[in-house]
Amino acid sequence: MMKNKTILLASRPKGMPAEDNFQFEESEIPALKDGEVLLKSLYVSVDPYMRGRMSDAKSYVAPYEVGQPVNGGIVAEVVDSKHDKLPKGAVVLGNLPWQQYIVHQGEGLNQVSPDVAPLSYHLGILGMPGLTAYVGLLNIGQPKAGETVVVSGAAGAVGTVVGQIAKIKGCRVVGVAGSDDKVAYLKNELGFDEAINYKTTDDINKAIADACPDGVDIYFDNVGGEISDAVYLSLNKFARIAICGQISYYNNTKPATGMRAEPILLKKSALMKGFIVSDYADEFANAAKELATWVKEGKLQYQETITEGFEQIPTAFLGLFSGENTGKQVVKVAEREG
Amino acid sequence: MMKNKTILLASRPKGMPAEDNFQFEESEIPALKDGEVLLKSLYVSVDPYMRGRMSDAKSYVAPYEVGQPVNGGIVAEVVDSKHDKLPKGAVVLGNLPWQQYIVHQGEGLNQVSPDVAPLSYHLGILGMPGLTAYVGLLNIGQPKAGETVVVSGAAGAVGTVVGQIAKIKGCRVVGVAGSDDKVAYLKNELGFDEAINYKTTDDINKAIADACPDGVDIYFDNVGGEISDAVYLSLNKFARIAICGQISYYNNTKPATGMRAEPILLKKSALMKGFIVSDYADEFANAAKELATWVKEGKLQYQETITEGFEQIPTAFLGLFSGENTGKQVVKVAEREG
Repeated sequence: MMKNKTILLASRPKGMPAEDNFQFEESEIPALKDGEVLLKSLYVSVDPYMRGRMSDAKSYVAPYEVGQPVNGGIVAEVVDSKHDKLPKGAVVLGNLPWQQYIVHQGEGLNQVSPDVAPLSYHLGILGMPGLTAYVGLLNIGQPKAGETVVVSGAAGAVGTVVGQIAKIKGCRVVGVAGSDDKVAYLKNELGFDEAINYKTTDDINKAIADACPDGVDIYFDNVGGEISDAVYLSLNKFARIAICGQISYYNNTKPATGMRAEPILLKKSALMKGFIVSDYADEFANAAKELATWVKEGKLQYQETITEGFEQIPTAFLGLFSGENTGKQVVKVAEREG
Repeated sequence: MMKNKTILLASRPKGMPAEDNFQFEESEIPALKDGEVLLKSLYVSVDPYMRGRMSDAKSYVAPYEVGQPVNGGIVAEVVDSKHDKLPKGAVVLGNLPWQQYIVHQGEGLNQVSPDVAPLSYHLGILGMPGLTAYVGLLNIGQPKAGETVVVSGAAGAVGTVVGQIAKIKGCRVVGVAGSDDKVAYLKNELGFDEAINYKTTDDINKAIADACPDGVDIYFDNVGGEISDAVYLSLNKFARIAICGQISYYNNTKPATGMRAEPILLKKSALMKGFIVSDYADEFANAAKELATWVKEGKLQYQETITEGFEQIPTAFLGLFSGENTGKQVVKVAEREG
């Protein structure tokens, strides 16, 4: 029998998560029964929202259980099958446990075509982060040509797509990111009009104001905190703010405090809306089609940070909170066989 | 010649405004020229938004000038006329200086019918505060029967109308106000389902949660601060928050700080939007018609606090910030002659 490895939630983090919140477990893979497939994990997605699931606070997705496997988006290959519709060699995308091999009954798995794009893209630009950028920017931001869009977490999996879609829509795009390399990438590779390294900027308020001489019409926020405060000071009348993530607070042990947005929203008749990608599930099919077209046409550039090795999954996840990744962070666990 | 009195802005307040920020001036009324009318002020509106105009910070309306008359909504009677369309005896509503008698060329004045309702109603339920309640609740709140609506500043000129329209729309309505008398008024006279005296409540979070067993779908906010924090903790998924006023911060000398709303908006996919009544100017005609109908049908109760005497205008204005008024605060300056 083949040996298998699983990553369990060992304990709930207080504040910043650490390696010891995770635990590796070895097991054996049971024989397949009728109707089951054996999946081999190829690419594992690590995402900021998973921090929320490590806590037991009520949120929009159920928390992980201590002592149980962590789960998330995984691209996997069917390496053995007693299932009618999922033959050996098929590649699937699903919400799956952090496990090298997974025995599965097939429900909730989506087959992906290995020919459209690299397989890992289905965890990123053609998957949840790409769809998040698409539905959030277009529904809440409602970008119009000539408007100014600011994106925080601009070099992340969502931010890179937001900025590029905003460019496709004819907007001036300003990205905020956390390193000079990221800033260079946004401006030189992705066509952002301006990008700001918030970690080395003396005066973030002035940096935003200078980069947005006509003010800010749309703010797509992945981060929160003082970056948001700076953007709020430059908002135009009738501005729209999409709250997609608030990674600067995810490791807080108390409710976040700071400048109140409400008086500014009042003064500017501005709109602020939180969302999760699944709020717009009925738009996914069209969104994925348009994203794939833009990728094929070269209008959407896509970058991944690919870490190798199943054992590196916790480390890659933790790296999200120190900004290690440029673009979508994935972990490559195995080569495709078929 | 008749003597006239005017109230000028004497100085800009730092923090809470006081009587000495205002100054009375006596003058004489010049003879009318062709095309002019002489207006006699009957009812003067005092409103929280005027605090903003006393500062020189950029806002949605221009600041008052030091040494110049304060102005705002006034119902006035034409007591002399050399104007084609405004005969002696007509009653008009306009944005006018705080002055007993006003020489005016007629532009921007709206004639009101003295028969629809008491004249002072045109400063309240049929005027700016009523329209504010109507357009904000219906456009941003989008109330549906069975939903729970919380209103802060519930006993004020806007809040009383918001709650009653929400009842007309079939919602459960919870008001937050600052005295037991106001609470009793909201529940017994206006039909609010619950009302909370935030000044005497030990635990406002618990009070809101108890009053909203099904959570909060719509929050119409006139106040801000800890009342808002408490409501945010009870928000339902897809809640809508209309930011109409933030009176708890108007006398702040620094930007307001406190709990961040953004992480909660994210978790609840909630919407927050600031507005000013003029954003929805194209809806005023229909809104005023529907409000008048509801008043006539007895579906909308309306209460005013009427202070008497031109000299009392500053005091009545200052009373807004200590919650002296129940319903719309107006100052009666003179009897109608015609």
